[in-house]
Amino acid sequence: MSVITVGTMAFDAIETPFGKVEKIVGGSGTYVAYAASNFVKPVQQISIVGYDFPTAEMEELKGRGVELEGVEIVSGKKSFFCSGKYHIDMNTRDTLVTDLNVLADFNPVVPESYQGAEFLMLGNLMPKLQMSVIDQLRVRPKLIVMDTMNFWMETALDELKAVLQKVDVLLVNDGEARQLSGEFSLVKAARTILKMGPRFLIIKKGEHGALLFHDDHVFFAPALPLEDVFDPTGAGDTFAGGFIGHLAKTRDISFENMKTAIIVGSALASFCVEKFGPQRMKEINKDDIAARLSEFVQLVNFDIDLV
Amino acid sequence: MSVITVGTMAFDAIETPFGKVEKIVGGSGTYVAYAASNFVKPVQQISIVGYDFPTAEMEELKGRGVELEGVEIVSGKKSFFCSGKYHIDMNTRDTLVTDLNVLADFNPVVPESYQGAEFLMLGNLMPKLQMSVIDQLRVRPKLIVMDTMNFWMETALDELKAVLQKVDVLLVNDGEARQLSGEFSLVKAARTILKMGPRFLIIKKGEHGALLFHDDHVFFAPALPLEDVFDPTGAGDTFAGGFIGHLAKTRDISFENMKTAIIVGSALASFCVEKFGPQRMKEINKDDIAARLSEFVQLVNFDIDLV
Repeated sequence: MSVITVGTMAFDAIETPFGKVEKIVGGSGTYVAYAASNFVKPVQQISIVGYDFPTAEMEELKGRGVELEGVEIVSGKKSFFCSGKYHIDMNTRDTLVTDLNVLADFNPVVPESYQGAEFLMLGNLMPKLQMSVIDQLRVRPKLIVMDTMNFWMETALDELKAVLQKVDVLLVNDGEARQLSGEFSLVKAARTILKMGPRFLIIKKGEHGALLFHDDHVFFAPALPLEDVFDPTGAGDTFAGGFIGHLAKTRDISFENMKTAIIVGSALASFCVEKFGPQRMKEINKDDIAARLSEFVQLVNFDIDLV
Repeated sequence: MSVITVGTMAFDAIETPFGKVEKIVGGSGTYVAYAASNFVKPVQQISIVGYDFPTAEMEELKGRGVELEGVEIVSGKKSFFCSGKYHIDMNTRDTLVTDLNVLADFNPVVPESYQGAEFLMLGNLMPKLQMSVIDQLRVRPKLIVMDTMNFWMETALDELKAVLQKVDVLLVNDGEARQLSGEFSLVKAARTILKMGPRFLIIKKGEHGALLFHDDHVFFAPALPLEDVFDPTGAGDTFAGGFIGHLAKTRDISFENMKTAIIVGSALASFCVEKFGPQRMKEINKDDIAARLSEFVQLVNFDIDLV
């Protein structure tokens, strides 16, 4: 029940209304790995870092069952760096600086030991790199989940569409679903996107929860109402990691189990935003997760007598 | 199990991205009455109209068990009129024209036959008029639900706060909850507002659903994802009508039953937005409502194994 995850391991500088950090560990692959490793071992990471990525962080990940054989370390360059500033609503972020550094040369190589993984999580990356990973796998995984972003819709739409043909689940936010489909209504957007390849579509709406579409079915998972969203960085990736982690743990890719997986992903994401960067993800244990899941049950559970 | 509802009966001109109507029946009281009358009879309406309010509409309401003894008809004046334009996201509305007409003289009088009602729904109105209705009731209703809006927070805050002391449930949207509390976080806003009087707070988030707060408990009801929101006018009032209608029908004002009532309100509101004005509310029957409620169950129902 191994999971291959592909994504960035990087540094972030973040400013939110609650504070500011100059340089902390981040990257989609990092968040996915922290989240998924609560449920499944090994998490087989594919990424690229520079000489400056902390050894301690690597050790921490290894200690959680994350294999790093697929993480290339480039000795002469710095890790990918991104800085951003969130506004009070925490749904909009201004990207201030993007230093690709090692990411400019990223050419993911799937280690031989990763072959045969049943689950593949393609973090948000250049579509042709996502495709390259799919192509390198000799046996198609049972489930391929793909994240992407508006930038690739603007700069690499054809390649993005080619990857869409190969995946089972697409994860995007509401704005990206609208952009990709050309439809404002999310129901119509989902119908259009489900014709592009993926059998399942998850539309993330930040503090407003997430929707799962499949055939004519729709499921809604709320976000937990929080006192404060301290730092939303990595929440989407953490959601993805919790989602695929639960699916890999249970080895059940039915629509019913995907609903549960989305609740699990939402629960993990609700921890992520409580502190800067992945800090909170390192602190929580199985009991914390179970307690949070129980809050989600309370949050949406109701009795109705359908006469 | 009667319900007194207080609110406007009026005309609206509405423009949405899907079309335009010059003058159709509207008003908070109208929408509340249509929705509540699916569940409880009589609905005892208190409102004011001019000579121009259609007799046919009055008859339609009466046919549904809505008593109109408390609706004052002013022969020399026109009914309240409002025109507005919605933008593509349907969450923002520009009010173009507001002609108070009869509403300027509204002085609600509770008919003797309404005394003893167990439920009171105070639609969005000048707070001192809401207070006047409460003061006229010789026996305090089992449950008082109050709607309001940002305009009264800006122009009549002290009177609004006085009414808040007298009610059990406050209904506001997310922006109004923030404005009333001075808190951006809805969780913090709820805590502040629950200290102002009401024991229950419902925060409506339009297409993003609604939250119910009570003590330290929170419940989330989604909005049904719709292909198109044709016209959101009256959705909040319809929600309120479904909410109090279900509570009055079941005569159970527990937190658990309020959760169900919010789902019922959301289901009713999901019909309201399908056509201009209250048109859709006149078409639906009990089977339609039951089928829609079942869609809500499907929408949020998930299994989780809390280990």
